[in-house]
Amino acid sequence: EHISQPGKQKNVLPLGGRGIIDDLMTKYGSPSAHPLSKDNLFIVAPGFLSGTAISSSGRLSVGGKSPLTGGIKEANVGGPAGQKLMQLGIQAIMVTGKASGWKILKIGVEGISFETAEAIVGLGNYAACEKLYKEYGKQISIILVGPAGERKYLNSTVAATDADGNPCRHAARGGVGAIMGSKLLKAIVIDSTGVAIRKPVDKDGFKNALKKLTETMMAGPHGTPGDFLKNFGTPGIVDVDNIKGSLPTYNFRQGNFDKHEKINAERYIELNKQRGGRMGHACMPGCIVRCSNIFHDSNGEYLTASLEYETLAMLGSNLGIDDLDAIARMDRKCDDLGLDTIETGCCIGILNDVGLFSFGDIAKAESLIDEIAQATPLGRILGSGTEVTAKVFGINRVPTVKGQGIPGHEPRALKGWGVTYATSPQGADHTAGPSIEDPLSPVGQVERSKSSQIINTAFDATGLCHFTFLYKNPDVVIPVINAFYGINVTMEDFMNLGKKMLREEIAFNRKAGIGPAADRLPDWMRKEQLSPTNEKFDVPQKEIDEIFDF
Amino acid sequence: EHISQPGKQKNVLPLGGRGIIDDLMTKYGSPSAHPLSKDNLFIVAPGFLSGTAISSSGRLSVGGKSPLTGGIKEANVGGPAGQKLMQLGIQAIMVTGKASGWKILKIGVEGISFETAEAIVGLGNYAACEKLYKEYGKQISIILVGPAGERKYLNSTVAATDADGNPCRHAARGGVGAIMGSKLLKAIVIDSTGVAIRKPVDKDGFKNALKKLTETMMAGPHGTPGDFLKNFGTPGIVDVDNIKGSLPTYNFRQGNFDKHEKINAERYIELNKQRGGRMGHACMPGCIVRCSNIFHDSNGEYLTASLEYETLAMLGSNLGIDDLDAIARMDRKCDDLGLDTIETGCCIGILNDVGLFSFGDIAKAESLIDEIAQATPLGRILGSGTEVTAKVFGINRVPTVKGQGIPGHEPRALKGWGVTYATSPQGADHTAGPSIEDPLSPVGQVERSKSSQIINTAFDATGLCHFTFLYKNPDVVIPVINAFYGINVTMEDFMNLGKKMLREEIAFNRKAGIGPAADRLPDWMRKEQLSPTNEKFDVPQKEIDEIFDF
Repeated sequence: EHISQPGKQKNVLPLGGRGIIDDLMTKYGSPSAHPLSKDNLFIVAPGFLSGTAISSSGRLSVGGKSPLTGGIKEANVGGPAGQKLMQLGIQAIMVTGKASGWKILKIGVEGISFETAEAIVGLGNYAACEKLYKEYGKQISIILVGPAGERKYLNSTVAATDADGNPCRHAARGGVGAIMGSKLLKAIVIDSTGVAIRKPVDKDGFKNALKKLTETMMAGPHGTPGDFLKNFGTPGIVDVDNIKGSLPTYNFRQGNFDKHEKINAERYIELNKQRGGRMGHACMPGCIVRCSNIFHDSNGEYLTASLEYETLAMLGSNLGIDDLDAIARMDRKCDDLGLDTIETGCCIGILNDVGLFSFGDIAKAESLIDEIAQATPLGRILGSGTEVTAKVFGINRVPTVKGQGIPGHEPRALKGWGVTYATSPQGADHTAGPSIEDPLSPVGQVERSKSSQIINTAFDATGLCHFTFLYKNPDVVIPVINAFYGINVTMEDFMNLGKKMLREEIAFNRKAGIGPAADRLPDWMRKEQLSPTNEKFDVPQKEIDEIFDF
Repeated sequence: EHISQPGKQKNVLPLGGRGIIDDLMTKYGSPSAHPLSKDNLFIVAPGFLSGTAISSSGRLSVGGKSPLTGGIKEANVGGPAGQKLMQLGIQAIMVTGKASGWKILKIGVEGISFETAEAIVGLGNYAACEKLYKEYGKQISIILVGPAGERKYLNSTVAATDADGNPCRHAARGGVGAIMGSKLLKAIVIDSTGVAIRKPVDKDGFKNALKKLTETMMAGPHGTPGDFLKNFGTPGIVDVDNIKGSLPTYNFRQGNFDKHEKINAERYIELNKQRGGRMGHACMPGCIVRCSNIFHDSNGEYLTASLEYETLAMLGSNLGIDDLDAIARMDRKCDDLGLDTIETGCCIGILNDVGLFSFGDIAKAESLIDEIAQATPLGRILGSGTEVTAKVFGINRVPTVKGQGIPGHEPRALKGWGVTYATSPQGADHTAGPSIEDPLSPVGQVERSKSSQIINTAFDATGLCHFTFLYKNPDVVIPVINAFYGINVTMEDFMNLGKKMLREEIAFNRKAGIGPAADRLPDWMRKEQLSPTNEKFDVPQKEIDEIFDF
């Protein structure tokens, strides 16, 4: 499949990542196909800047028609896989139909091949990776589904190994694991040994532009991400959202958590000092942000890595759980099974409404995840995500948009972000267009969300990580793109790419039966006050409904 | 609530039944409300001809926003309740909010009152009715929810007692029981003792028009429904659909059932001769169609009544079950719990795809319904209907439209009816607009379905039963309406009422986020051939998409 011809047209941006998913789904996807049928597409696509010398450019997009939302889906994930694919010259992997038995797709300099996955089917991600390293060597990167994806749970991720080889990075949202599982594709093994970094067309121009880009990242125009994220990682956000009153707590019934100090970055760092483990870990080689982390258990043994803010919020405060060890154990279980921790936290949280879970009950929360692992009927319900769980238990206060659980930034206290949750074609998604300005005011939030969504959507084509924060300074990215590809695109072209992608996604959703009226937060968020800000979500729906009139 | 003023405007049809639901949902319903929240409306509305001397005019509409489809819902049910409500002058019951504890709504000549339902909560419909008859006397009619509705299962009915007082009639579709249950309304008890039949404005005109109407019914212009249905009831349809190849068999994998003779009307009548039980039973007093039936078990004891075609198809052939006793036992269980037999049959059928049910396994089918009764996690999954069950078990061949299970007339071999399933705002619904002409041809089916939906929608406002077949001769109904209300409406007015109702329903659905692209049959019905006709569903989707351009 010849997807794009970067450099052929001087004023056309290359396709990449989410842009390729949008393009392929528009061209070849069937909006009416059942997401788990042969007619759905499973797509893996690195960003168009991946595999280059640019820091943090290896984000990999994974997508298709979502089993969870019924709409188009792009979930993205870090780790070295994206870089390696692009270095191997692979812009996208698109899988249609269904294999006759469980398969491994092996990709290397010698070409691609399908091999049997029999030896690793049924294994958790950690054990599966161990076996694959034994078979193919420790130098490979792996993209794979765990038992959740194999069983086609609506809450199932596609895992990717990090720089250390641990399957702790996840394209987590929208049930993309179930799409991969429905193809009987257990793993993609990538070996780029001996393959060089991608070379720019305009070497000097690229060098200069990259210098400027790197300086901008390091200057940290919006705080100093280089320092904050390296020192505290995303766990540092626990205190930030707690102070803002936007930390989902007790099933979205509060915006702050009185025990936040038990699950924040300080506590994490304190435990690291005792046990090993670290902040400042790079999920992909060469990343200068280094936001990731490694968590050791009380015996000083590796337990999990990339224990991120979203997990601390959704499996921590949202469940009233104040024990970092417990959250880390659950994170490990989710990573191993291939479960989205956001969806899992939303889903366990709502069980409190029907007496099936008590806030702070660690043993119960862990046993519920064990049920998911064991595929008991209850486990299958929970593995189907928040919306299905609510339906099965008759729960009417459901924190979802378009069927996808709301992430760890409470929209009532972060109203611009709330507009993004409401309107993103991806469903409630914290990376689709963050917006934190003037967070309690309903005024101007639609415009902010719109700008944020357009630029972040365009970024999702590049492979650049959100934590470069370059979406706040896209002007330093354009010269890098131009020099790398020897093209001459403008900021306007870049914004138009974001708009085009959003339009394609919306069009797909419309054809899939998802009407414009699905662009809204759940009603109860407009009625229930959220302490401590005592805010309701009050951005006018009429204004929200016009967000994509472009 | 003053709903309509029949007689005030000479050229305006009164509102009734489904028309009242559409009107109230448009005026007071919230399309964005969670169906199980306080903001949803639970509406019960008899037809505007109910309570009169017209045969078969007592169909009662039950609705709100459907927990199953997420759209507007009207399900209707026979029995005497509709007649009694209209005789008491009650055009509609609309319930908002939620009671503080389980309640009985008592309606009588003395007015209405709320009483505690504590004594009957948790009981099956039969036991609950027994207790209510002891408390209020055998003369009452009862509208109630069983355990399924109490638990807010998405597959839950609102039951109504038949002329003998058995809770075997059900407003079965779309989970209306869950709406009633979410209000904590267990039962509506109606006592119309001493209340007279409704009197027409133009007595002589009514008498003459009614004579013509009754003659038309008895003449049976499209077959002789008076004879066929009285002698064979709807079980007579088993052979009809079997011959046409439109009898759902083995989870919609065949259109005929080699053991159809074990579950057809002949077999039913044979058992009746041995055990008692009967055909030709009238669900409401004065009905001259008398399509209903009573089934006795092998001990000659009453087991169930109104064991209808849909149940024989969906719990019989669709599950490969060829034992009328077993189907009758399951029907009784569904009636007692308050489960839609169509949804239940669809739901158990798809389990065959994942090895959880084998066709013909009666013990397993019954045990699955027992799980639903016991509210085990598996039972709750199945009680959530076909779509949720498919999601939980990763099944991608799902016989639903807008989340509602496809009834017992295979759309691939009855293509006009298939267009109705695809496009009805109610989801797949066999009463929304039947169409059986030239069933294997894709040509002209959209036009046929459209006409049928318009006229049948209008009929759903009158209270007239589909089995009057008067929707084929609506011209004899207009004079009856005019004489009864002293108005002067035309056939065109009547058709416009149907169109208006459909427009209101579609508008509600759009606001609820259900886009026009949801108007389609599942993709696999366009790809898989159905034996014995070897037909696929091939009515052009483009044509289908234009059906409601009026």
